[in-house]
Amino acid sequence: MTERPPHGSARPGGRTARTRAAVLAAAYEELDRDSFAALTLDRLARRSGVHVSTIRRRWRTVEGVVVDLLAERSSTLPTPDTGDFRRDLSELTQAIADFNNTMRNRNLMQGLIAAAAHDPRVEDILRTAFVRRTEEVTLIVRNAVERGDIPEATDAWEVIATLGAPLYYRVLILRGAIDERLVQTTVETTYQAARAGVFVREAG
Amino acid sequence: MTERPPHGSARPGGRTARTRAAVLAAAYEELDRDSFAALTLDRLARRSGVHVSTIRRRWRTVEGVVVDLLAERSSTLPTPDTGDFRRDLSELTQAIADFNNTMRNRNLMQGLIAAAAHDPRVEDILRTAFVRRTEEVTLIVRNAVERGDIPEATDAWEVIATLGAPLYYRVLILRGAIDERLVQTTVETTYQAARAGVFVREAG
Repeated sequence: MTERPPHGSARPGGRTARTRAAVLAAAYEELDRDSFAALTLDRLARRSGVHVSTIRRRWRTVEGVVVDLLAERSSTLPTPDTGDFRRDLSELTQAIADFNNTMRNRNLMQGLIAAAAHDPRVEDILRTAFVRRTEEVTLIVRNAVERGDIPEATDAWEVIATLGAPLYYRVLILRGAIDERLVQTTVETTYQAARAGVFVREAG
Repeated sequence: MTERPPHGSARPGGRTARTRAAVLAAAYEELDRDSFAALTLDRLARRSGVHVSTIRRRWRTVEGVVVDLLAERSSTLPTPDTGDFRRDLSELTQAIADFNNTMRNRNLMQGLIAAAAHDPRVEDILRTAFVRRTEEVTLIVRNAVERGDIPEATDAWEVIATLGAPLYYRVLILRGAIDERLVQTTVETTYQAARAGVFVREAG
């Protein structure tokens, strides 16, 4: 629902771009003060100075705004390419940890998970966001295969999902922070398993 | 809040035990037909034949009933003890998969995660339930250490959390079923990492 850019959205610095920036910034600030459950279109309108009917026309719901915010925030995460597989995994894990250890990002994630249980559209969007982000960083695995660090037929998607799972399990289920130890064991677990060929797909 | 048994609850087959059984069974049936979001105390009263004020007095909220239901359902999961570490991990993973691949159990889990975002009490109870269940099955790891299958100072809790994380990531974030391939890669990932000493804690 946020994928249909209105006229003028391609003009950087145009009115539509400014509106989007203001509303997303307002959502981000609100999530730093309060939980997702407390977020309303009226609060977004008040903080951003954008009229509530404009927000409703563009994003329809609070969930729409927050999904757009998630897409914007997570697209700023770079994909490491250090030339070393373990180091790439380590930098990616640290970036995910830093992202989720920020209170407002954690509120964002927990809020989306909650909204997904009530709204199949949010569920779809959430799944799509995770799948897209996972696909982006599979580059790390493809590079490692090319260098010969891990076996040829390694399933890149599974490697990245294995890396992410313990981190999101900690944040979303155990509801704790991602500490140094978890970063380290997650990287090593994924590294050892990938080297041992756990994610190899038999051809045919 | 469900931990305070009223008088008479210890009598098996007594009125209080029958009431609990009826209400939990009703909740379980409702979750097979509809999502957690649709569950109300009135619907539970109608289906169980127990008066709504009785339900409210004992569990206070729908979340209270569902947390009690989760405790009851997951306590029926056995802890494997086959004498072989990989096989124990495999049987436990299959049990978690079977549990979460049932529609009503998945509704139950997704509903609790959603409720946790809005209610700190549910968040506490959910975390406690996961921690308690994880501790129970650490027996598998302690047995493996005793047999010398994995290193002495292995952190048993981390091993079990590593096994569970990809499964709950699939169910709660990617919102898919736990398939045969995921069972296999999860078991192998955890097994290889534990054997390689990833979860060893340095003394002092």
